[in-house]
Amino acid sequence: MTFNSVLDNVNIYEAGKPIELVVREYGVEPENIVKLASNENPYGTAPEVKKVIEKNATNAFIYPDDSMYELKESLADKFKVEDKNIIIGAGSDQVIEFCVHAKCDASSKVLMSKTTFAMYEIYAKQTGATILKTPSDEHVLDEFRAIYKAQGADIIFLCLPNNPLGECLDAKDVYEFLDEVDENTLVVLDGAYQEYARYKDGAKEIDVAEVTKKYSNVIYLGTFSKAYALGGMRVGYGVANENIIKNLHKLRPPFNITVLTLAAAIEATKHEDFVTECIEKNFVQMQRYEEYAKNKGFNYIPSYTNFITMYIDGYSSKEISQKLLENGVIVRDMTGYGFNAIRITIGTQEQNTRVFKVLDEVLAK
Amino acid sequence: MTFNSVLDNVNIYEAGKPIELVVREYGVEPENIVKLASNENPYGTAPEVKKVIEKNATNAFIYPDDSMYELKESLADKFKVEDKNIIIGAGSDQVIEFCVHAKCDASSKVLMSKTTFAMYEIYAKQTGATILKTPSDEHVLDEFRAIYKAQGADIIFLCLPNNPLGECLDAKDVYEFLDEVDENTLVVLDGAYQEYARYKDGAKEIDVAEVTKKYSNVIYLGTFSKAYALGGMRVGYGVANENIIKNLHKLRPPFNITVLTLAAAIEATKHEDFVTECIEKNFVQMQRYEEYAKNKGFNYIPSYTNFITMYIDGYSSKEISQKLLENGVIVRDMTGYGFNAIRITIGTQEQNTRVFKVLDEVLAK
Repeated sequence: MTFNSVLDNVNIYEAGKPIELVVREYGVEPENIVKLASNENPYGTAPEVKKVIEKNATNAFIYPDDSMYELKESLADKFKVEDKNIIIGAGSDQVIEFCVHAKCDASSKVLMSKTTFAMYEIYAKQTGATILKTPSDEHVLDEFRAIYKAQGADIIFLCLPNNPLGECLDAKDVYEFLDEVDENTLVVLDGAYQEYARYKDGAKEIDVAEVTKKYSNVIYLGTFSKAYALGGMRVGYGVANENIIKNLHKLRPPFNITVLTLAAAIEATKHEDFVTECIEKNFVQMQRYEEYAKNKGFNYIPSYTNFITMYIDGYSSKEISQKLLENGVIVRDMTGYGFNAIRITIGTQEQNTRVFKVLDEVLAK
Repeated sequence: MTFNSVLDNVNIYEAGKPIELVVREYGVEPENIVKLASNENPYGTAPEVKKVIEKNATNAFIYPDDSMYELKESLADKFKVEDKNIIIGAGSDQVIEFCVHAKCDASSKVLMSKTTFAMYEIYAKQTGATILKTPSDEHVLDEFRAIYKAQGADIIFLCLPNNPLGECLDAKDVYEFLDEVDENTLVVLDGAYQEYARYKDGAKEIDVAEVTKKYSNVIYLGTFSKAYALGGMRVGYGVANENIIKNLHKLRPPFNITVLTLAAAIEATKHEDFVTECIEKNFVQMQRYEEYAKNKGFNYIPSYTNFITMYIDGYSSKEISQKLLENGVIVRDMTGYGFNAIRITIGTQEQNTRVFKVLDEVLAK
């Protein structure tokens, strides 16, 4: 049995290690595990949203409303657009997949920064498209410009702010860049962590209504997985003009989110205060990581997200991550990205205290 | 903005109408709506599974264990295969998508019966593949043979039993057919309703371990959406040899089922008694539909599933379905498939009594 030859070049996404694995492999008790590897909201799901999930458990046997009418209405209100400008995905991840498969084949080119969200490349490779990357790890728009001018691109991915590094372009620079992009190049503005970025610095805020009205080739992606604390429920969305959304819908499988996910997401849009509180706490706690790094003499990337990437010079990030894991602290080793660094999700006060303690012990060995 | 030209030919799946829509559009109270259009298990999710969902609501913010270790173990036990023979999808639907995208491009051919599960064709068209259909609506293996011999195929879909018609091939005839298929043609045995078929008639039962061990080009698909009463949770699976599974995994997005879905599916595998009880009741209730049809002089297709397709000669199925809808009874009109027929999911005793009453009224008008 042979398969499409494009699959030969497809890598599989390496997910952050789950709690279950650490229990199975290292015998750590679940209650002693601190999972800060996947940028979940450590404060947990909003109580009202949890209640809605519990209440809807009785509907688990029924397919969801595939029109997702109420959720789209709610998002349309939030972003000051219309229902027809919105597509719902099983995570914004799935909307990335729709974008790539709608635009690309083996003759296509997909442009992104050197170190960015892994799924851009993985989905692009599924179509056999050529991957173009900027020389710098972080987003440098002049490098995007140079490559685009020389080689063109069918899709350009801008991750605002950028996962897994944490930096974020200013919105005005992004708009300037959009002015220079051809109408037939799809530009994906991935706002999975936008809520964090715009809280820290208003200059980072993408005006979704304005940008999707002005540019017929731009799609903005958002997610419920991060600030909205529904990572386990798999729901995100794309906002763009009707032509883009209509075409992406051709690739959307029916019932692509669960009946409980739909109910949870609708409820989550009603509790923006909860989201803001979580983000406030996030940046208070992030200061502790910055101080910790300074005390140890470690460099770090100033972050506009709910994680921080810390270079741990003088040690091997691979070894340190492994030792942390064995002690029940799950972080993301960045060796695979070519960095001697670890990426840590900013946890709760208690979790972070535990991280510093275990990290101190591990570094001292 | 232009998109892949293959999208021009892609149709969008028409989902069964949700309760929310009937409430919105016809002002029927939710408690008065009988939804028998999407072949859900009308007895609802098993109580133990509901409890697990409620208990796990608190984990909604955490990504699931992407290895799906425990669920795979459980399915491997059930089918007497190994973990490496299993892939989990967001519904078996998603595994169909993986199969098509792993094997097909614009030069491919996909063979199926004339009237069968709509997603086979929809996914195939996304790759630009040519669709080959048998002349008969129901599965006739000699017609598959003739087309396959003349034109070949990259994928052959057999729906066992067949949705939306309800007929089912005997397993021994399927095995005989498999002997004649080339090793490089992927044969998909879609067992979404197998639990029903094998209960009604042991001759329909596909031996999953045997067939996937003997044939390196066969994948069996199962789902939790029907007999296991988790349609709203979106989870199904494929069972095949390691080579197939390994390649399909290259197309599986990370976290493709929710954290609650994973917990629910694991629990559901522990309650086979519940499943059997639901199936027993299903066939008791189906007799009532068969009698109803006979009394009215309507033909129907003897069904090995949890639905029945009834020709309503002398009436327009489109009109009747619409009138049923306005009265809060949601069924599937088969006009789109070229049949003057309705497909009705076999409901609970109470639901079916309501259907007969409303149908009587609507037919009398």
